[in-house]
Amino acid sequence: MGWGSMDVALCCIIALCLVHVSLGAKARHFKWEVVYMYRSPDCFEHIVMGINGQFPGPTIRAKAGDTLVIELTNKLHTEGVVIHWHGIRQLGTPWADGTASISQCAINPGETFRYRFKVDRPGTYFYHGHYGMQRSAGLYGSLIVDVADAENEPFHYDGELNLLLSDWWHQSVHEQEVGLSSIPFRWIGEPQSLLINGRGQYNCSMAAKFSNPPIWQCKFRGNEQCAPQILMVKPNKTYRLRIASTTALASLNLAIQGHKMVVVEADGNHVQPFAVNDLDIYSGESYSVLLTTDQDPSMNYWISIGVRAREPKTPRALTILNYSPTSASRIPMSQPPVTPPWNDYNHSKAFTKSIYALMGSPKPPETSNRRIVLLNTQNRVNGFVKWSVNNVSLVLPSTPYLGSLKFGLNNTFDQKSPPDNYDSSYDIMKPAVNQNSTLGSGIYTISLNTTVDVILQNANALAKDVSEIHPWHLHGHDFWVLGYGEGKFKEGDEKTFNLKNPPLRNTAVIFPYGWTALRFVADNPGVWAFHCHIEPHLHMGMGVVFALGVHRVGQIPREALACGSTGNRQN
Amino acid sequence: MGWGSMDVALCCIIALCLVHVSLGAKARHFKWEVVYMYRSPDCFEHIVMGINGQFPGPTIRAKAGDTLVIELTNKLHTEGVVIHWHGIRQLGTPWADGTASISQCAINPGETFRYRFKVDRPGTYFYHGHYGMQRSAGLYGSLIVDVADAENEPFHYDGELNLLLSDWWHQSVHEQEVGLSSIPFRWIGEPQSLLINGRGQYNCSMAAKFSNPPIWQCKFRGNEQCAPQILMVKPNKTYRLRIASTTALASLNLAIQGHKMVVVEADGNHVQPFAVNDLDIYSGESYSVLLTTDQDPSMNYWISIGVRAREPKTPRALTILNYSPTSASRIPMSQPPVTPPWNDYNHSKAFTKSIYALMGSPKPPETSNRRIVLLNTQNRVNGFVKWSVNNVSLVLPSTPYLGSLKFGLNNTFDQKSPPDNYDSSYDIMKPAVNQNSTLGSGIYTISLNTTVDVILQNANALAKDVSEIHPWHLHGHDFWVLGYGEGKFKEGDEKTFNLKNPPLRNTAVIFPYGWTALRFVADNPGVWAFHCHIEPHLHMGMGVVFALGVHRVGQIPREALACGSTGNRQN
Repeated sequence: MGWGSMDVALCCIIALCLVHVSLGAKARHFKWEVVYMYRSPDCFEHIVMGINGQFPGPTIRAKAGDTLVIELTNKLHTEGVVIHWHGIRQLGTPWADGTASISQCAINPGETFRYRFKVDRPGTYFYHGHYGMQRSAGLYGSLIVDVADAENEPFHYDGELNLLLSDWWHQSVHEQEVGLSSIPFRWIGEPQSLLINGRGQYNCSMAAKFSNPPIWQCKFRGNEQCAPQILMVKPNKTYRLRIASTTALASLNLAIQGHKMVVVEADGNHVQPFAVNDLDIYSGESYSVLLTTDQDPSMNYWISIGVRAREPKTPRALTILNYSPTSASRIPMSQPPVTPPWNDYNHSKAFTKSIYALMGSPKPPETSNRRIVLLNTQNRVNGFVKWSVNNVSLVLPSTPYLGSLKFGLNNTFDQKSPPDNYDSSYDIMKPAVNQNSTLGSGIYTISLNTTVDVILQNANALAKDVSEIHPWHLHGHDFWVLGYGEGKFKEGDEKTFNLKNPPLRNTAVIFPYGWTALRFVADNPGVWAFHCHIEPHLHMGMGVVFALGVHRVGQIPREALACGSTGNRQN
Repeated sequence: MGWGSMDVALCCIIALCLVHVSLGAKARHFKWEVVYMYRSPDCFEHIVMGINGQFPGPTIRAKAGDTLVIELTNKLHTEGVVIHWHGIRQLGTPWADGTASISQCAINPGETFRYRFKVDRPGTYFYHGHYGMQRSAGLYGSLIVDVADAENEPFHYDGELNLLLSDWWHQSVHEQEVGLSSIPFRWIGEPQSLLINGRGQYNCSMAAKFSNPPIWQCKFRGNEQCAPQILMVKPNKTYRLRIASTTALASLNLAIQGHKMVVVEADGNHVQPFAVNDLDIYSGESYSVLLTTDQDPSMNYWISIGVRAREPKTPRALTILNYSPTSASRIPMSQPPVTPPWNDYNHSKAFTKSIYALMGSPKPPETSNRRIVLLNTQNRVNGFVKWSVNNVSLVLPSTPYLGSLKFGLNNTFDQKSPPDNYDSSYDIMKPAVNQNSTLGSGIYTISLNTTVDVILQNANALAKDVSEIHPWHLHGHDFWVLGYGEGKFKEGDEKTFNLKNPPLRNTAVIFPYGWTALRFVADNPGVWAFHCHIEPHLHMGMGVVFALGVHRVGQIPREALACGSTGNRQN
């Protein structure tokens, strides 16, 4: 039975995409168990990390102002686990941020940790593992916060569709981790598949009939774990498409055949609406776009997702926008939309630079109290290939920083802070010469309630003429993206900063050989990771840690700190 | 280049086998780091667990009375780790037994635990992981304790050879664990290879020239990770061959072409010497045999290891006994010795029942204070395939028993003890009917300094006409093996017990549909596992826990209990 006959059965998995109206209490309780399970995300069987038997994990749906209580039990055999609530700022609850070694101890097998925190702001978020490379292993899911009952979004829509995007490897994450930490270095390579809501097709294509040379056509009955999730819509309506990327590596571009999209939200913040034919999305980002179903209702349309910024060796992910009551099995008449050339950075930059805050959004302070310039370089340290920031490659300590700082333990991590800048003579256009990079666990101490500028400075990697895109994600705060530039950031460039309507984000990219300027007000006491959201890059040390106002942090639940030196403490 | 030309280079790995005379201090310090690494144990690359970059881990060589201090640092990314010192009774140091959830918390990534214990008695031991199925992942090595300087063994030998035997799968241990815990159940299957000192050959045979039909011949330069370790000997000498099995599953039989072996030690205890043509060895056992090099010195001889008691699907492991100065590359003239038929249980029983304590060895008390009859059955519990003991399938708690009992925490495990016997009407010859098996973490509380008899009772597994061999291993004590019987143990069978010269062991097998009677004096305060040493069987619940005299246990190092409820305690 082929794709052509995929109809009734497939409708079973369509329901997930529709609007889900949730009423109910302000505190929402969840009991979750993290497990490994056999699964075929891309039609190839593998072990994946799931929650309560589901992959991706259950979608959380809440309202702004709700308190979420997630009792997370680790049912793995020998591995610890944590979950980070990506985009939730954890105002007043830094111990619930779910970053192992930073905000809490990993939860041991057999144990339960209770995450309790407020989702103060509506938006499109997601959650994921933040220990080792467990996100790559499949530990993720959607977290969607609707406006509070009395509130309205500043845009109208009739229905909602949710797309959580990820990438998938056939090599186990354990093997990937070992390869990244080996001499000689073994890179994980490009993903075998892209997944839409946890579903991809490795060795077949839904669009096989348009392919030249011919390729294998997917055959689904519809109940396969890798069957695509069809997005069912009605004609002449407006849909809010929530899109989040939790890829381990891939930067993505999404297009919907014959439809423009109007971007209205980025990382939980409203943006000045703008229309696009296709949308770039980097790991760690989320967007809402409005989609008007104004095309021929007797047809269906491709939704196509491809790789950006790395030479793509991964087939596009495809699914179908199905105009009801047209049969879901009706294949669109023409080719799926083509992803822009992977190295068309102008296309990427044009999109990224089109994002402005919606009028009326909070504006940044006019000046900052401190500027931290972070040079990202790829280095060899003791023969290992690492990523460094200002010559320090981050190694996380076994005692969480939050506990060490709260209880004044100063032998658990490097007490020397990494520098606020890099050697001005460093040539960012050439392969790394800063061979004096070291491993380090030092942190940046930020004065509470100060305004901090961070200039992310990109450079050439180890190989000649290679500089990669890195999406940097900040925990505990949003930042304003004040601007992007080419080459080295230099004195005077701050005059180009957009202080009028810069977008608030929690993730921002640096383009090859360029810089990105961010500003944030350090007003949320805690210890917060700021790192490249590419999983193997973070694993290789590409991150820093900001600590601020830890003396103002309230009572940390004891079970958050039951390890390392905080586990042994007497007080 | 073929086996025929393997000569000089190969000699490099021969040195390991020779006598290693160690002098020095009474306290021996080791700094170990547990890592995953890429390795080709059987010529197929895989990730394996190693120590300080070695697989198997470093051989520890000590003298009776020495204190070993091993500072074990967990360099894994997300997994805890412990190491059990198999055969070392840990007199007075039960927290150093290295059993996760029983004697200590798993050591978290990045943390260091210091094992400090006395090796009070000479013998052939080994060490291995005891958390999840990390032993299967390659976490093991040899531990050899020589007699103290002033002492002599009761037998003479000129040199020593060491063989640590194991089995190896190509499927990752993480996947194996998930399969065993899945519905439907996925059995791990037979090993792909048998390893001798961590070296095996998956897709080639050293004895290819004797094979009909022809098979692929191994080609080695000698420096491959999977090249066999040649055992070099001189003619007309007597060698002590130390043999230990840390297999995950396989029961083994070892034979040396043209040579008899005289068994002199079992599990660290002297036995009445007896000669054999081949030797059975089960997982968890160790033996010393004396080998006299009295054959034609111009020849080399096969050492051949095959699978017993399960229909073998795994090729024999082979290496060569090389009579110096004959070239190591000279292949023996005839076929390697043939393993006895896998289901020739009479052969196995004859060997096992030939083992008696050396005259002058400690004798068991004439009577016991308590008899515990443990029926081993395979069951389904909530749809999962499990092994149960008296209808309880062991699930370990997240707080170690040793800490729970020491500090009087009674909500960390089932307070009800499992029963001392099973329903007398149970038919051990039929597939399991005891479908009321449950998961449980209850333990047996044993009065200190009492004598306990344990009757291990075998039965039919879930499939018709299947009853397997299980080697049961006791921690913290040796036991006397008083006898073996067929069918159900019944009143009066105790009259057949050998109280005159039963061997002292720490591991004993139950044969299909039979029973094995053990006696031990419970004189070592602590909490001790007693379990089937087949790794997946223990993982499936085939074990019990004995607690005795925990009030007499000294100061437990705080870092042994930095998890679960003991991690949070205030005292």
